[in-house]
Formats: sequence, C-alpha cells, structure tokens
Amino acid sequence: MERINKVTKNISGIDHEIIKKTQERLDNLTKPLGSLGRLEELAKQICGITGNLSPTLEKKVIFTLAADHGVTDEGVSVYPKEVTIQMVYNFIAGGAGINVLAKHVGAKVVVVDMGVASDLKPSPELRVKKINYGTKNMAKGPAMGRDEAIKAICAGIEIFEEELKLGINIVGTGEMGIGNTTAASAITAAFTAKSVEEVAGRGAGLNDSGLKNKIEIIKRSLLVNKPDSTDAIDVLSKVGGFEIAGLAGIILAAASHKTPVVIDGFISGAAALIAFKIEPKVKDYMISAHNSQEAGHKIILEHIGLRPLLDLDLRLGEGTGGALGIGLADAAIKILTQMATFKSAKVSEKKE
Amino acid sequence: MERINKVTKNISGIDHEIIKKTQERLDNLTKPLGSLGRLEELAKQICGITGNLSPTLEKKVIFTLAADHGVTDEGVSVYPKEVTIQMVYNFIAGGAGINVLAKHVGAKVVVVDMGVASDLKPSPELRVKKINYGTKNMAKGPAMGRDEAIKAICAGIEIFEEELKLGINIVGTGEMGIGNTTAASAITAAFTAKSVEEVAGRGAGLNDSGLKNKIEIIKRSLLVNKPDSTDAIDVLSKVGGFEIAGLAGIILAAASHKTPVVIDGFISGAAALIAFKIEPKVKDYMISAHNSQEAGHKIILEHIGLRPLLDLDLRLGEGTGGALGIGLADAAIKILTQMATFKSAKVSEKKE
Repeated sequence: MERINKVTKNISGIDHEIIKKTQERLDNLTKPLGSLGRLEELAKQICGITGNLSPTLEKKVIFTLAADHGVTDEGVSVYPKEVTIQMVYNFIAGGAGINVLAKHVGAKVVVVDMGVASDLKPSPELRVKKINYGTKNMAKGPAMGRDEAIKAICAGIEIFEEELKLGINIVGTGEMGIGNTTAASAITAAFTAKSVEEVAGRGAGLNDSGLKNKIEIIKRSLLVNKPDSTDAIDVLSKVGGFEIAGLAGIILAAASHKTPVVIDGFISGAAALIAFKIEPKVKDYMISAHNSQEAGHKIILEHIGLRPLLDLDLRLGEGTGGALGIGLADAAIKILTQMATFKSAKVSEKKE
Repeated sequence: MERINKVTKNISGIDHEIIKKTQERLDNLTKPLGSLGRLEELAKQICGITGNLSPTLEKKVIFTLAADHGVTDEGVSVYPKEVTIQMVYNFIAGGAGINVLAKHVGAKVVVVDMGVASDLKPSPELRVKKINYGTKNMAKGPAMGRDEAIKAICAGIEIFEEELKLGINIVGTGEMGIGNTTAASAITAAFTAKSVEEVAGRGAGLNDSGLKNKIEIIKRSLLVNKPDSTDAIDVLSKVGGFEIAGLAGIILAAASHKTPVVIDGFISGAAALIAFKIEPKVKDYMISAHNSQEAGHKIILEHIGLRPLLDLDLRLGEGTGGALGIGLADAAIKILTQMATFKSAKVSEKKE
C-alpha cells in the first residue's frame, strides 16, 4: 500500500494557468472562436495535464492487460475461458482488433499477463506480472486476497514506469479476460446506487437467459462478499479482477507522471472507478474515449463525471475505443500546434 | 443539364450481395459478433459501395470549395466577406484546420475557387472553376441564374472526374464561404417542413440580434424567390451558392463512380440535400461524418436518413469533420482487412 500512497501523493491538480494560455492560443487560430468544439477542449485538457503549451503526443502506448476470472465457472460468458489465453497469443501475433486500431493511430500495444489461468509461452511481446492463475469464483467468496489486489495495482504502476523509460506521451487502457464484464458490473453496482439489473449487460453476446443468470451471479457475489464501497481495495479484491487492478495502477501512475490517460470501455471504466475512488484527482487526467454498448459504462462515466468522445456502439474492449480516442487527442494537439494564426495567415478577425 | 442526367443515370444501388459477404467476413474475425458496432456498419457500406470485399482507402481526397455570397451585404456574418479569399490563401499555404486534419488522416486537400468575389493569384494548389464573382444578394432576387446553378454542378462533376484520374478511393466534402450558413439554412427550410427559426444558427458566432437579423433575411429571401421544392435546381439557383452547387456535383459524381463520400457539416449537408433531391439513390453512398452544432444540420440528416459518426460540437466546416470521418472509415476497412480470423488465430468460437 505504501507504493500506491506514494503514487497518489504525487498526483496534483492540472495546470489551469496553462489551460487559460491554451485557450488564448486556440482563439488566435484561423477559425471562428470555439468552432472545433471538443477538439479544443481536448487540447486544453492535455496542455493542462502535461503543463506544456505545445505538447507532443508522439509516443502513444496502449496497455492491454489480460487475466482470467474464476466466476466463469458460473457460466457468465458465451465464450469459453481458454479464449483469454488464445486472445493474448492473438495480441502478440498482431491479429486482434487492438493491434489494427493501435497501428492505425500510431500507438504501441504493451500486452501484459496479469493473471491468465495458465502459463503463456515467453515472448518479447509479452510482459508477465502474473498475480495468480485467474481470480477465484467471486460467487463463492472473494475474487482475490487484499494483498493480491494491492500487488496487482502496484504491478500496474510498475508496468507504466518501466514503459515510461522508453517514453510515453499518452496512454490508452485496454484489457482481455473472459468473464470480466461480470466483475466490472459488480464493481459498478458496489460503488454506485444502481441496481445489478441496471449495470449488467450482455457482455460478448449473452442471450436473455444468459443475462438473467449473470445478474443472479453478480447479486450473489455482492451478497456473499459484502464489498465496502468506502474502501476501493476491498471492492477490488472481493469482486474485481487482476487486469482491472493493474489498469487502476496504470491510471494512477499516469496521473502521477502528468500523462493523459484515455479510458476505453466498460472494464477500463471499472478500473477508472477504482482509481477515482483511491484518488479523485485522477479524474482530470482521464479522457473517456467512447460510450460502450454495455449499459454499466454510462453509469460509471456519469458517476466520475466524464463525457465520452465517441459513440460508435463499440463493445469489444482490448483498448480499441481507446485507440480511436488517442487518434482524436492527436488531432486536437495537431490543431493547436500546426494551425496558422489570424496574424500569420493575414486573415481578418471577427467584426465588432 | 445533360451532363448531370448522364451522371445520375449511372448511379446504381449499392451491392447487397457484397454487403452480405462482408458481414460473413466480419463475423469470422477474432471479436464477439458485432462488437465493433458502427465500424462494422461502415466497412459493410464501403464494400457495398465499391463492390469490393477488400477495398483500399489509400487515396483519400477532400474537396474544399470556396465561393462568396451576395447576401453578406445584409450583415448575416460576423466575419467580413474578404475572409473567404484570405482563407483560400490559408488553405493553399497549409495553415487552416482542414490542412491539419487532412494531413492527420492522410488525405489530400483539393482547393477550388467556385466563385470567390475576386480573382486569386494562380497557384498549382488551386483549381479555378469560377462561375461568377460571388452570388447575388438572395434577399433581393435569385442568388444565381439557373444556367449558373447547372454550370456549377457540372464543374463539381468535372473536378471529381479530373481528380479521379489520379486515383480516389474515398472523398470528403468541404467548403469555405462567408455567408454560406445563410444559404444552407434557406435550402434546408425550402426542402423540409421546418421553420427558418429551426434551421438557422449562429454560423461563425452571431449574437442574438445578429441571429434575429439572419432569420429575417432568410425569410425575406424565401419570400422574394419562392423556391420550388420539387425542383432542386430551382432551390439551388434561388437561395444556394456556387460552392454548394459544386459539392452537389461532386457527391453525384462520386456515387456514379462507386466512391464513398463523407459529408462534413451543415453546408456540405445542404449540398448533400441538393444531390439527394436530384437523385435519391446517392443516399447509400453518403457517410455522415459528424453532427454539427448548427441546428439545421441535424434536420438535413434526419430528412435524408443519415446518422452521423461523430458528435464533437464542431462548426468550422472546410471539411474538418469529414476528415475525421475519413479516418474512421479507414479504421473500419483496416479492421475488415487486417484482423485475424478465429481459424487463423486458433481462437475458440462462441459456445452454443
């Protein structure tokens, strides 16, 4: 916990003086005032986060963390558990959605085994921070020990700081774990006043009876574990997952190093919620990439107070929506740094 | 009119057999069925348009057409009229928003003088298809002659076909013209059952009294000219603009050459509406990039039946939202063509 406290202590407010100066710069560019809407907001936020009036987003990194979930024993997913490991190999081989979209926006994908249920073949493309071989079945008891939850958050911090040595200007969060919408739903229900029915969705494609079962399992998990919503680590350990914990660590670490962090969908949102509950100041460092089709995601965003950039009916995870969000952040910073000013382009300003 | 008829006769329905096959391909990729939402829809549409199961979007072209509007005499814009020509020079120099965002997505910007009020210095970066030195003041009579409207649409067709020789896989529409939200509003009111109050917005930044005046001017223009909503050329000539006409021609030409066309904001939407009224089949070739902050834009999209991809509070025009839309189309086609299949990646499929 010491390591986590050290990181959170380093998270300061973003720089409002820089934001003001960025607004002035934006208002001098050859366009009607405010006419690039949310791109301008995004540019200001990134300047405020980095404390830089002319930031670069050259080094883009998406962390895709994988782990298994014991709760899959309860039939909460339409895909078999082994898909987690198979998809990790797919990430390493470059064939998954996140590989394609990360490449599209010029981002590197860092794949991490946070707790896949079996050992993966070593690869230079894979980081191993395995906390355990999957979580335990949360419908019967805590998903992990409190020590494991802390260890997993610290692993996320480590991953970020290791990669930071190679350079990071912006981060995207991503994940893979069969069963993890069940964990994300339980976390969301635990922290918000919403019912399980409101926060649970069809995940990778459950039918009506599958969704009904999933809701029952989440309710049972909350009943069995009684997570304490005033203690983020308690919620995380009882109904969370190793990839979710790792992402919470990455989000905290990014904020402590003044790095904008683009939050992907529902599972990343649950990690963002954990990070937010540990240290509310992280909110200003977060950029919500998109509005997932999973209903619980919207509830998380409203709870934290984030407005998603995109609404494309995505529900893949892996960091795919985050990749597109990073592309928009890149566009926003290019607008700020590459456009001509009224003066330089000799364009007349607004009449008054 | 013969040329226009020839082009519209060449617009066929999109290929639904290819769309079906694209769906099958998408369903074999390593992701839950349908989990990439609107990116999947976009990929299918582009395959259906091009008749190609593996299309490339390598050659991206944004046409930014500029023209002046006589109605600026009535004080409908907060920017002086000379900004049109100044911004064209800015486009040529590469300093405008559209230059930055086009470069961001790897698109070429083709700048066209459709009717700027004075002559521009020749440049290899500028195409000249000047129909006239700006339109006439539509508050006092028709903005242009019927012959000019037809000539301007044909110029758009020509621009597209000239550029097609260099290769075009996807097109974006863009424009510049001080006063052109006034023309776009009048076109929207003429074709839809909406009131001028509903379709008119603040353009580049009118205050309340400016907006009130703009609404009065649009009402007067409609009253004086009585555009015939069953005759698109009549509406265009009475309350349109040269850049709007040229874009309508580009949209029709793109559809006739089986090329997807990404529609930018409100002014481009007005051009799309003209093209749609000339030949409703163009609808399937259109991709709406974003939902502009100008209220009339949403009315146009609903009238045609298009759903915008992005909602970023943009209201700059030039093709800026279209550029971002082209980026998403590119992402969609990369998903389709670069992702691994369940079989190739040895990933287990959904349980039954």
